[in-house]
Amino acid sequence: MTSFFERHQATLQKACETSRTRTYWAAYPEAPSGKIYGETAKADAQSTFDAMLGQTFDLGQPNNGGAVGGEVSPFGLEMNISYPDADVEQLVTASKEAGKAWGKASVEDRVGVALEWLDRLNKQSFLIANAVMHTSGQAFMMAFQAGGPHAQDRGLEAVAYAYDEMAKLPGQVRWEKPQGKNDPLLLDKTFRIVPRGVALVIGCATFPTWNTYPGLFASLVTGNPVIVKPHPAAILPLAVSLKIGREVLTEAGFDPNVLLLAADNADAPKTKDYVTHKDVAIIDFTGSSTFGQWVRENAGNALVYTEEAGVNSIVIDSTDNFRGMTSNIAFSLSLYTGQMCTAPQNIYIPRGGIETDQGHKSFDEVAEGIKIGLDKLLGDPARAAAILGAVQNEATIGRINSVQSLGRVVRESNEVEGMNGARSATPTVVAVDAKDEGAYLEERFGPISFVIATDSTGQSIEIASSSAKTKGAITAALYTTSEDVIDQAADAFAWGGAPLSVNLTGGIFVNQSAAYSDFHVTGANPAGNAALTDAAFVANRFRVATLRRQVG
Amino acid sequence: MTSFFERHQATLQKACETSRTRTYWAAYPEAPSGKIYGETAKADAQSTFDAMLGQTFDLGQPNNGGAVGGEVSPFGLEMNISYPDADVEQLVTASKEAGKAWGKASVEDRVGVALEWLDRLNKQSFLIANAVMHTSGQAFMMAFQAGGPHAQDRGLEAVAYAYDEMAKLPGQVRWEKPQGKNDPLLLDKTFRIVPRGVALVIGCATFPTWNTYPGLFASLVTGNPVIVKPHPAAILPLAVSLKIGREVLTEAGFDPNVLLLAADNADAPKTKDYVTHKDVAIIDFTGSSTFGQWVRENAGNALVYTEEAGVNSIVIDSTDNFRGMTSNIAFSLSLYTGQMCTAPQNIYIPRGGIETDQGHKSFDEVAEGIKIGLDKLLGDPARAAAILGAVQNEATIGRINSVQSLGRVVRESNEVEGMNGARSATPTVVAVDAKDEGAYLEERFGPISFVIATDSTGQSIEIASSSAKTKGAITAALYTTSEDVIDQAADAFAWGGAPLSVNLTGGIFVNQSAAYSDFHVTGANPAGNAALTDAAFVANRFRVATLRRQVG
Repeated sequence: MTSFFERHQATLQKACETSRTRTYWAAYPEAPSGKIYGETAKADAQSTFDAMLGQTFDLGQPNNGGAVGGEVSPFGLEMNISYPDADVEQLVTASKEAGKAWGKASVEDRVGVALEWLDRLNKQSFLIANAVMHTSGQAFMMAFQAGGPHAQDRGLEAVAYAYDEMAKLPGQVRWEKPQGKNDPLLLDKTFRIVPRGVALVIGCATFPTWNTYPGLFASLVTGNPVIVKPHPAAILPLAVSLKIGREVLTEAGFDPNVLLLAADNADAPKTKDYVTHKDVAIIDFTGSSTFGQWVRENAGNALVYTEEAGVNSIVIDSTDNFRGMTSNIAFSLSLYTGQMCTAPQNIYIPRGGIETDQGHKSFDEVAEGIKIGLDKLLGDPARAAAILGAVQNEATIGRINSVQSLGRVVRESNEVEGMNGARSATPTVVAVDAKDEGAYLEERFGPISFVIATDSTGQSIEIASSSAKTKGAITAALYTTSEDVIDQAADAFAWGGAPLSVNLTGGIFVNQSAAYSDFHVTGANPAGNAALTDAAFVANRFRVATLRRQVG
Repeated sequence: MTSFFERHQATLQKACETSRTRTYWAAYPEAPSGKIYGETAKADAQSTFDAMLGQTFDLGQPNNGGAVGGEVSPFGLEMNISYPDADVEQLVTASKEAGKAWGKASVEDRVGVALEWLDRLNKQSFLIANAVMHTSGQAFMMAFQAGGPHAQDRGLEAVAYAYDEMAKLPGQVRWEKPQGKNDPLLLDKTFRIVPRGVALVIGCATFPTWNTYPGLFASLVTGNPVIVKPHPAAILPLAVSLKIGREVLTEAGFDPNVLLLAADNADAPKTKDYVTHKDVAIIDFTGSSTFGQWVRENAGNALVYTEEAGVNSIVIDSTDNFRGMTSNIAFSLSLYTGQMCTAPQNIYIPRGGIETDQGHKSFDEVAEGIKIGLDKLLGDPARAAAILGAVQNEATIGRINSVQSLGRVVRESNEVEGMNGARSATPTVVAVDAKDEGAYLEERFGPISFVIATDSTGQSIEIASSSAKTKGAITAALYTTSEDVIDQAADAFAWGGAPLSVNLTGGIFVNQSAAYSDFHVTGANPAGNAALTDAAFVANRFRVATLRRQVG
């Protein structure tokens, strides 16, 4: 029988190669097409999802007889799904027990399980899309792509990096040290990967799979049993994912408790108990900077990887495509209602205006151009709904209202027509001056952006890159026709730790981060200490045990 | 002109290769031979060293006009070397300033400087040997080998690993995403290594170069300026090393302050001020577990790699070479008077005795065999002095006396005849029972070992591997004629995080850890979170900045 590893070896190989070349590749097709996923796949997934509503989702894990779960769809759908509850100690004990055999399994067996799991996740992309859509509020297309194939590719990327690091290690070698005319000294050495212990992965509500898979797969293939602690508002996407993973583990002869779901309720959170548990050895966290800091400070000797928040900037110096620029920015501000950690917030424009293909444009004209871009993009309610999706958290709506007083409102936020029952909001744009730091130099999560009047592009770059360094930033963008300005900004944002996108006027947006090519989060500013994916993200998740035997 | 990188590229290549094959190789010859190092090298180094005594050693660094330095040779030589003093802020500021150009240099330029520096350090191995000998108390041969070529090889190993990780990154790529019948989406991407910030390396008194070079070279080549904080009792070896490094930097056109020495006095230590400084981004620490814990807890967001302490074990089950076993153990206990972090402390023997090639041996006979091994090895005072060296710290002598009451003294410690003015001590061996955990289950640094009577080899393995896991251990050894026992111990010590050496009866000793092949410290128990050298030791010392430019 072909092993899981053999079955998917070519995919692994290609993922390893592409991680080195960092060119374009995807293992999992992003088109939600019947031709690729099967003509009935979408309808089947819808039925499966509908059947989950109002039911108990049981993974067959150890539990304490209680139930948790209170997910409410931002689109207004009643979910009423409950999950068996478990005590922290129950799950950690089960995880450690399951981890014993898992930690001793071969690299190929573990990687094989991960690859098979990813393959089956891919086949369930429509189901995952429903689950992601109705927890995060993402519109269907994004829920499918980012929650399905893109998340799967980020998972595969982590597997590839981890495999690469583990495969470096020779299993057995003879060490022969010459001794001049005497016989050489001889040792036979065996090297073995050893896991660190129980791994905890803490998910977020906006990208429950995309932000969870990398740490999850990296810890898993390096031999650690994994407990996934989903956000209480987005349990289902991970419950569905883990159910499939537990099936693969069982088929491969492992204890399914190598993967455990630790669901909880928002009013009785268990995350801190997991973070501080003495047996938790690795933690991957995605969420707020405030809680991220708490995790970093309270994790003890556990290895911690975080993706926290930041303030993303666009610096506008000049452009030879004013219309392309404003359209591109408008799309970036609108996509998933600005709830992406990669969405821009601060748009820096010289107060004296800029040169463009349409001649000189004043500060106000540039701001107006972005407003017009937004109005055009979102003028059709159906298209608006498809781009914006719904607002995950009610607090975001409150935040939109509160920023209207911080400056001159260039564009007001509105609800979207026809999205019955959904929380919706179009982007607001507020004009402020560079000196109004209290307004714009903190993260205002959601469809909120500022156009900021600066003395010069030099000042724009200075403020934007400094705020990246001190407050964190996950993306940065620049529009300019000057190579000198590009060089200057490249240096500044390299120091600031934010990847810089230059002159995006077409079908690529600053929010987008591609597996195998773009490092998502650099680890070089407070937006997070991890990068998806580099060697630093995987190499410390395992250690090496050596056996040396004297020969002769 | 050939660049430094080109000049040493073959050496780098071989180091990278050997780090993968983990077979035997050394770039720097370990024989202190005139044929290799030059017939006058030894005498020249002696003169240079003598001329340093009683003088100020000035590296030309920023300073505050004061002086520090109070090194006293454990061999009794008056040193009276002083070093210009500097304020913490002075050095950190100079380091940051120097780091700007260094962080933007090419990988090849930085690695070239490191390789040239290592080459020049190698040529000065006799001088380094004198400096290491008269600070650590190591006998000359060990001071030469461990302080010179072996330390240089560990440094090169770190450079090779770091180079490998950095070289993975493509400089520039075109990313092309197909769009069906439409034109593909195109981005030109440039990836750039960015350093984390000021790196701090905290040295120890027993292996001032061997334990310092890996972190120092790893941080350096990944673009970080480095401040080296030597142990107040062992400044000279690092002052000599850094002087050479600063010369290479200057020749290569860099600010020599990329490398800075932060000497201090034991009664006015500055380490904590460096550790907690906001601009210190990476810390490598070698030293006690107590201070190591303080460093880990107070380093803030700095990345921390430590080598702390542990309790190393030998499990004796059976042997087909009783004499070889006892001789080998005797040497391991004696080498550098047990002051190696790799020296064994606890020797577990079943209370019912063991089977050997000389028939059954009772517990007492095995203990006596080790005593006889020690007496024979150290019977000749000249040979004893050459193996033992001197005792670095007076406190170790006190510790030897204090353990005599913990059990039955199998062998008393004595001073070594003829080592005039030196602090010397031969190993003491104390017999205890497995239940006397208070006696043997903590680190007793120095020439102190326990023979411990257990119920069985199973119990020996259980206690030894558990103590590795909970107290830390850097080495472990096993003597047995049973493959089953080897398998059992291999599993137990893999879990315990200590590399296991089996049946060493010849010229290889459990204390020895070879560059490119043996992982020194596993990171899997409290003896340290770092391993020399694996990808985890280097990959997180830099981050990656990306520039994406839309094409067309």
